[in-house]
Amino acid sequence: MALETKSLWKSHGGTQGVYTHLSDVCACPMTFAVFVPPHAEGQRLPVLWYLSGLTCTHANVMEKGEYRKAAAELGLIIVCPDTSPRGEGVADVPEDWKLGCGAGFYVDATMEPWSANYRMYSYVTAELPAIIASHFPMADLSRQGIFGHSMGGHGALIAGLRNPGRYRSCSAFAPIVHPLTAEWSRGAFAAYLGHDEKAWRAYDAVALIEDGHRLPDVLVDQGTADSFLDSGLRPWLLAEACKSAGMPLTLRMQEGYDHSYFFISSFMGDHLAWHKTRLYH
Amino acid sequence: MALETKSLWKSHGGTQGVYTHLSDVCACPMTFAVFVPPHAEGQRLPVLWYLSGLTCTHANVMEKGEYRKAAAELGLIIVCPDTSPRGEGVADVPEDWKLGCGAGFYVDATMEPWSANYRMYSYVTAELPAIIASHFPMADLSRQGIFGHSMGGHGALIAGLRNPGRYRSCSAFAPIVHPLTAEWSRGAFAAYLGHDEKAWRAYDAVALIEDGHRLPDVLVDQGTADSFLDSGLRPWLLAEACKSAGMPLTLRMQEGYDHSYFFISSFMGDHLAWHKTRLYH
Repeated sequence: MALETKSLWKSHGGTQGVYTHLSDVCACPMTFAVFVPPHAEGQRLPVLWYLSGLTCTHANVMEKGEYRKAAAELGLIIVCPDTSPRGEGVADVPEDWKLGCGAGFYVDATMEPWSANYRMYSYVTAELPAIIASHFPMADLSRQGIFGHSMGGHGALIAGLRNPGRYRSCSAFAPIVHPLTAEWSRGAFAAYLGHDEKAWRAYDAVALIEDGHRLPDVLVDQGTADSFLDSGLRPWLLAEACKSAGMPLTLRMQEGYDHSYFFISSFMGDHLAWHKTRLYH
Repeated sequence: MALETKSLWKSHGGTQGVYTHLSDVCACPMTFAVFVPPHAEGQRLPVLWYLSGLTCTHANVMEKGEYRKAAAELGLIIVCPDTSPRGEGVADVPEDWKLGCGAGFYVDATMEPWSANYRMYSYVTAELPAIIASHFPMADLSRQGIFGHSMGGHGALIAGLRNPGRYRSCSAFAPIVHPLTAEWSRGAFAAYLGHDEKAWRAYDAVALIEDGHRLPDVLVDQGTADSFLDSGLRPWLLAEACKSAGMPLTLRMQEGYDHSYFFISSFMGDHLAWHKTRLYH
């Protein structure tokens, strides 16, 4: 579990780092970003995971997400993993942005050739938390929250739903709430998990809620001018599932906002405050 | 003076736009970014200019500068020009990042071939303000402030010093304060302005102060871990010039910060507050 520091910047009184390590789970080098806010010697801080969307790496939110000011004020460590394995020997379909590199969909693939590396569910919920625990002594892994954008909002929802008690807080920007029936995810799910759609339900927020999984509450922001709203996102499906299940959901339709980081950064402070309330009590 | 809208995003309650127009002064198409904060119908808002550093376009600060949250709260329009003319027929030395495209140094070049397009001083202080006035009816050009980073900090200082009363506020992140004697600017100054260094003094903050130009006050933030501190930036030269001239300077040496946008974004809120105080009174 050796960790290589690729970059380290002082920012907003804390440190923004980029690290690489050889992942056992993904069987390749993986890169991630960690922001550690200013804190007193010996102080331990909750860890908030941000999962990114299709085509992104750790860098998009690190550069455009505008999380550091609020994280520094609120005392939150922010960890931003990559969205897939990458590099030599890792299966990919470069011409398809919805499959392969940049499109891990936070599942553990079971089908060849993807199963050799594409195990992002285990990577973000198990291997990387252990790395953080062993290399960042100020990180208090007993207090974890998780959020994300689009495909990463999907990842945050399924990670939260499948691990009751692990994540004290969960939120999402424009999440893919029901990948089983979304055009832009069905291809990847079939490639990674095979054609038996029963296996897909473990990676689908709406299906997990239908199947009895619960979160204490969820915050979702969704722009009304998001060009993927009707085709891939459809937050009303999550609202219906939560309503049927009696699971609290705060769904905010944000007038005029699209799918970009100009949207995400606008509500980043609200989300960090949501997590802070649940991670400090 | 036709303006083409390339992109328009809702962000932090306002609108972040990117625009292109055919510049008379630079004799080529030019791109710039404008953030208009939320405001009441008919309300007029001050305009704060951000000038970027070497290698940048309008996009670097737009994506990484984290100015929108504070600008929305404080009621400031933020205009971010490009750093040079670009494109077909525009002179360039692609292998030199300190000359040509991305390195306009906010001067009006007088030497061939640069003089045909490289007139960034007139562009940012005269032509673009007129474009803003005619296309953004909420922009109150009687209240302008200016700031920037590195080469753009230099640009902000010289624009402020040379136009008393035009800019009510001026600040800089890690500015090049004395390009006459900095290795990384001497080559460009010689190319653009010729070898008679007397002509350079009109584009050098320290020289302008020595020659009697004044600003009411200036805020400068400079990281102590900036790798360009001793070679190109040397803020103590500005401090000495201001002290000799009796010109108020707030120079803050920021421990551990480097030259990147992780530094700039950390103090962006402070700078916008500085400008707000001087633009609203």
